[in-house]
Amino acid sequence: MKKRVLSGMRPTGRLHIGHYFGALKNWVDMQDEYDCYYMSADWHALTTDYADTSDLKQNSFEMIADWLVSGISPEKSVIFKQSQIYQHSELFLILSMITPLGWLYRCPTYKEQIREIENKDLNNYGFLGYPILQAADILIYKAHFVPVGEDQLAHLELSREITRRFNNFYGNILIEPQAKLTKTAKVPGIDGRKMSKSYGNSIFLGEEEKDLKNKVWQMFTDPQKIKKDDPGHPEGCVVFAFYEIFNKDVKDKCEKCKSGALSCVECKKEVFECLAVFSKDMAQKRKEILADKSYLEKIIKTGNEKAQDTADKTLTEIKQSLKL
Amino acid sequence: MKKRVLSGMRPTGRLHIGHYFGALKNWVDMQDEYDCYYMSADWHALTTDYADTSDLKQNSFEMIADWLVSGISPEKSVIFKQSQIYQHSELFLILSMITPLGWLYRCPTYKEQIREIENKDLNNYGFLGYPILQAADILIYKAHFVPVGEDQLAHLELSREITRRFNNFYGNILIEPQAKLTKTAKVPGIDGRKMSKSYGNSIFLGEEEKDLKNKVWQMFTDPQKIKKDDPGHPEGCVVFAFYEIFNKDVKDKCEKCKSGALSCVECKKEVFECLAVFSKDMAQKRKEILADKSYLEKIIKTGNEKAQDTADKTLTEIKQSLKL
Repeated sequence: MKKRVLSGMRPTGRLHIGHYFGALKNWVDMQDEYDCYYMSADWHALTTDYADTSDLKQNSFEMIADWLVSGISPEKSVIFKQSQIYQHSELFLILSMITPLGWLYRCPTYKEQIREIENKDLNNYGFLGYPILQAADILIYKAHFVPVGEDQLAHLELSREITRRFNNFYGNILIEPQAKLTKTAKVPGIDGRKMSKSYGNSIFLGEEEKDLKNKVWQMFTDPQKIKKDDPGHPEGCVVFAFYEIFNKDVKDKCEKCKSGALSCVECKKEVFECLAVFSKDMAQKRKEILADKSYLEKIIKTGNEKAQDTADKTLTEIKQSLKL
Repeated sequence: MKKRVLSGMRPTGRLHIGHYFGALKNWVDMQDEYDCYYMSADWHALTTDYADTSDLKQNSFEMIADWLVSGISPEKSVIFKQSQIYQHSELFLILSMITPLGWLYRCPTYKEQIREIENKDLNNYGFLGYPILQAADILIYKAHFVPVGEDQLAHLELSREITRRFNNFYGNILIEPQAKLTKTAKVPGIDGRKMSKSYGNSIFLGEEEKDLKNKVWQMFTDPQKIKKDDPGHPEGCVVFAFYEIFNKDVKDKCEKCKSGALSCVECKKEVFECLAVFSKDMAQKRKEILADKSYLEKIIKTGNEKAQDTADKTLTEIKQSLKL
């Protein structure tokens, strides 16, 4: 039997290619080898964005549309919305009882976010309990693997600790999830900062050709390369970063830039071509999916039902062992 | 339409007459005037007794049996088990997101219990969140009233604060529960301490006559009244406290004790008579209920279904307003 993978994204609406190369591409690639569960983590969205939830539903919708656009297949994977599977909240409640407060306060991402996010009041109970909810998300499906980056290893270790504590009290029911460390490409925004919707520097999935052209033309290049034959510094150049994403062999291009044999305009043209090819099918698929809302709704409903079945089996086992 | 009342007890197994005069009698009395929801708070039991849950199911069972013995009517009231109504945990999760940690840490009962309960590790996330779960219990049924003692007013005020914060964010959906302050009789254990199962000083509901006689005979009396005609001090006497529970006019009895005209033996005989009358029907009813487990199971199942219906209506409204 295939091993199970669980992953999720907070619903933030339309996805950009930073999401694609940072996570989605990896999700797509895992679909044949693993039994994949992909969720729109709308409960998690509430941990920080509780004050205004007006876009939550639409954001989930658009995000899941973009999953399909990217190649997530509802035939292969279980696509669902976290808030529709009540078992997450029940397991969250159960795990709450056995999770020491110290484990949560010591979590590095908790400290970091409390420090860094200044425009929201995060001193809430739910935000502190975020890692317990994450543990519940994984454990309720008995997932074997969770695809994570290096920076999330501490979070997953906390899930594993909670699992061990649970099993120690109530019997060997839950599976300790393992990290699936994945190499992902870092995609800069067109202004060189991290690609992020809130910065207005994103290239979205399925972007139309004319928008794509505009954005490539706005991309920041090496400020020291003003004329074509000025020697360039590809390592810090946004255009080159995009070139690298779409091309395996970049050595030649690199030399040409450095020697002044390649202009930024030429380079942008090539990157635009790559992006146009990459985006073309997506744009078409995106239109089709969004034209028929009921199709997407059906996919989510089917996914929810599958997720519920699996989650319910685990929860039944848990409740029996707790004598509830 | 009748106003709704919500109350619950932690499942601790068989109930004693301290439970009856401290809460249950009041529950029974409210049944005609209010739409009463009475729950076995088995999630709450986990906040402190997470390490060993082996008796949890049986304890709920015996406790609910004693509710029926005491006159809680499944025709009039909704009798249910908290852990079987998943909506409690979903609302708990939602309310978690908007509840400041400071409100929880400042809760007087939290500080008190952390200080006083020494044999259990209570530094867990779930124990801190106890008042949020309590708020969810009340709010999911849109209960108007919660019967409380003076000492629990702070807890209920926290539920009301959470309600206001919720309604402020998401619209006027939840009802601010009001305290129903109730006068209840304090019943001492047969040794004069608080009646508690763990002290081994309890008189149980539906106690058999011979056990009852033994326990009354063991009751502590005024240590200064050794012979019959010694003057007694009824105000500190366990036997007299029981006499007061069952008799409206105690003045005459009081005088007789003080003057030395009444012996402790006579007094015990009278108290035994009162207890025997009170317990007789209960003992019979208790036997009948426990003889047919399926009867009790059916009552709980029916209650769970009714509770689920009500809870589901509220949760649907909440999820719509949160755009989940």
